[in-house]
Amino acid sequence: MDKERFLGQASFAKGLEDVIVCESKIGYVDGAKGWLVYRGYEIADLVKCSTFEETAYLTIFGKLPRGAELEEFTSKLSSYRSLPEPVHRIIRELPQDGNAMASLRTAFSALGSYDNTGDRFDHSAWTEIGIKQVAQMGTAVGAIARHRKGLSPLVPDSSLCYTANLLYMISGRKPDDRMTKVMDAAMILHIDHEMNASTFASMAVASSLADMYSAITAGLASLKGPLHGGANETVLRMLLEIGVADRADAYLDDMFARKKKISGFGHRVYKTYDPRAVILKKFADEVSATNGTRHLYEIAQKVEERVVKQYGGKGIFPNVDFFSGIIYYSYGIDPGLFTPLFAASRVVGWVARILEYLKDNRLFRPRALYTGDLVASYTPLSERV
Amino acid sequence: MDKERFLGQASFAKGLEDVIVCESKIGYVDGAKGWLVYRGYEIADLVKCSTFEETAYLTIFGKLPRGAELEEFTSKLSSYRSLPEPVHRIIRELPQDGNAMASLRTAFSALGSYDNTGDRFDHSAWTEIGIKQVAQMGTAVGAIARHRKGLSPLVPDSSLCYTANLLYMISGRKPDDRMTKVMDAAMILHIDHEMNASTFASMAVASSLADMYSAITAGLASLKGPLHGGANETVLRMLLEIGVADRADAYLDDMFARKKKISGFGHRVYKTYDPRAVILKKFADEVSATNGTRHLYEIAQKVEERVVKQYGGKGIFPNVDFFSGIIYYSYGIDPGLFTPLFAASRVVGWVARILEYLKDNRLFRPRALYTGDLVASYTPLSERV
Repeated sequence: MDKERFLGQASFAKGLEDVIVCESKIGYVDGAKGWLVYRGYEIADLVKCSTFEETAYLTIFGKLPRGAELEEFTSKLSSYRSLPEPVHRIIRELPQDGNAMASLRTAFSALGSYDNTGDRFDHSAWTEIGIKQVAQMGTAVGAIARHRKGLSPLVPDSSLCYTANLLYMISGRKPDDRMTKVMDAAMILHIDHEMNASTFASMAVASSLADMYSAITAGLASLKGPLHGGANETVLRMLLEIGVADRADAYLDDMFARKKKISGFGHRVYKTYDPRAVILKKFADEVSATNGTRHLYEIAQKVEERVVKQYGGKGIFPNVDFFSGIIYYSYGIDPGLFTPLFAASRVVGWVARILEYLKDNRLFRPRALYTGDLVASYTPLSERV
Repeated sequence: MDKERFLGQASFAKGLEDVIVCESKIGYVDGAKGWLVYRGYEIADLVKCSTFEETAYLTIFGKLPRGAELEEFTSKLSSYRSLPEPVHRIIRELPQDGNAMASLRTAFSALGSYDNTGDRFDHSAWTEIGIKQVAQMGTAVGAIARHRKGLSPLVPDSSLCYTANLLYMISGRKPDDRMTKVMDAAMILHIDHEMNASTFASMAVASSLADMYSAITAGLASLKGPLHGGANETVLRMLLEIGVADRADAYLDDMFARKKKISGFGHRVYKTYDPRAVILKKFADEVSATNGTRHLYEIAQKVEERVVKQYGGKGIFPNVDFFSGIIYYSYGIDPGLFTPLFAASRVVGWVARILEYLKDNRLFRPRALYTGDLVASYTPLSERV
């Protein structure tokens, strides 16, 4: 069959690999150099010098905030933290032992029913909703984390920064300064990553001008997948399964023999070390040293060494998901919450990129190359064989 | 700034216009000829000879079902109709006067928490879930319709076909044969439309292997938008606002003068009459003649004539959303439920295209063209001006 007959084009990039879908000034990934910037700032600098709030402001508004701007933004993030009571009741209706990302998707979708200011498109109203959504994501993750243990949600603590409050709402314990700093760094590193699958899905939904809740719900729906945000949990479960560093070789021999993909390695864009993995590895080293999880870090080192030796030549290196789980697990966070933690950060990137795209919106409506029958003749039910 | 510096490509198609994202054998739109086929069958033939169930089977499985196949499929669609009780409770938590598509999005997302068989990808399990989702969509729309009136949901009637049961669950009245036939035709016409925005969004989400509920939730999220499924409701509200045919000219003069888009006209792919509009117009003519809604049909005719005269030369003609609302409204259906009705049909296309794409999945992960700063130097908070 002549494929070109229908659309005058026979070749296309599967999964839109390397296909440009928009312009952006938000963030840039150089996959060959292993380089990631938000608004021109290298992530290493942001991790060293900025907080999650500052970096979120930078990502959404395009510049580092001045003192008064940061204060206003932080105060908004804090004041928007509460969820409507019916949304808490909806969370409680969901199964305690269910997938936390499925719960988060439902909670966020439900939030949209309590804020119809966004049912008509208005850029400044949608910007305000976006800030609110960042604040609410932390609270929703906290409420779901508590529900998983059969506990009532905690009231957000407005004296705590976004990351510390998030950790408090999950565990009921206020983190010390070092834990706040390390987790804040991890949160900064997950804010944005160019046209990743969940960001793209959320932009695709936003482009029908549905509303910000619809768009963020789609981002959560995508992030749940094991080929995307779900990978950080899978990595940790793999490390737990291996159990001790001595068993890593046997585990990998088997995986290599069965040509199985090792979670936490490889990336569509990076063909070298993911710069986020480089930073997270240092934190994983530090945190695992004092939290009884040294064995997991040692297994990870072993796995990294073997996989890079085997596949590094093909551009397969650890990605952001490989070391983050060790940090979270060392701090006592339930692996089922790793992807929700990712969401509590990435929501900033979703919001920023949706708002940027909507400044000059065009509905995402591509084509498919039709390769089926063109003229089938109808057979009545009784004559079908 | 040299745009080509980063990605070696400076031009791209906004909104992915005419960009091919996959191959498909499911359906084909010829926008120049005004031609739509599902699996090679012209929609006019399917409307004339097939039911919604037969067409859904055809769309998902690629061939018209034999008697036993249709019986099994219909029986599954019927047996899967009920929703878990907590999902009914969640629907009741949502505001009665809220956006029905927002409610449907939440209800569907919640359904995912009660069926974790799809948390791991398995093509045949996901196919079964897809059939279940088609069945459940009708019930969810029905439950939401009843909740909007403060009523309890009805128990699905297994003696009724998909369309008749859907109408029964919405209104509490069993439709007569002619109403069933007309509405079934409308449902058939909405099943699939190639790489439309909601189908693409649902495929994008499915490609991370999240799960079928995540993917369908994203489809609903996208369909809600006024640039997509939301348009059928907007058209009807415009006709009601115009009120009588004599006022159509003044209304349009004003819209043309303000260069406002008229809902229900124009399509990314069709540059001539949308073949679905041609069929729906005939039904709208028939149904409005006996239901006290003739004035709406007359207004629509007037609007069509003026808009086509003004913009037909630019390829602007009535699309699927222009006449469907008159039919639904004539049958007493609340305009707030028009887009959910669309969803109760389009879910078939979402399921079919997701399942087809997942046979050879590749994560949708495109690129953005970075046009921002490349090397910003960090200024501490106290020094920012």
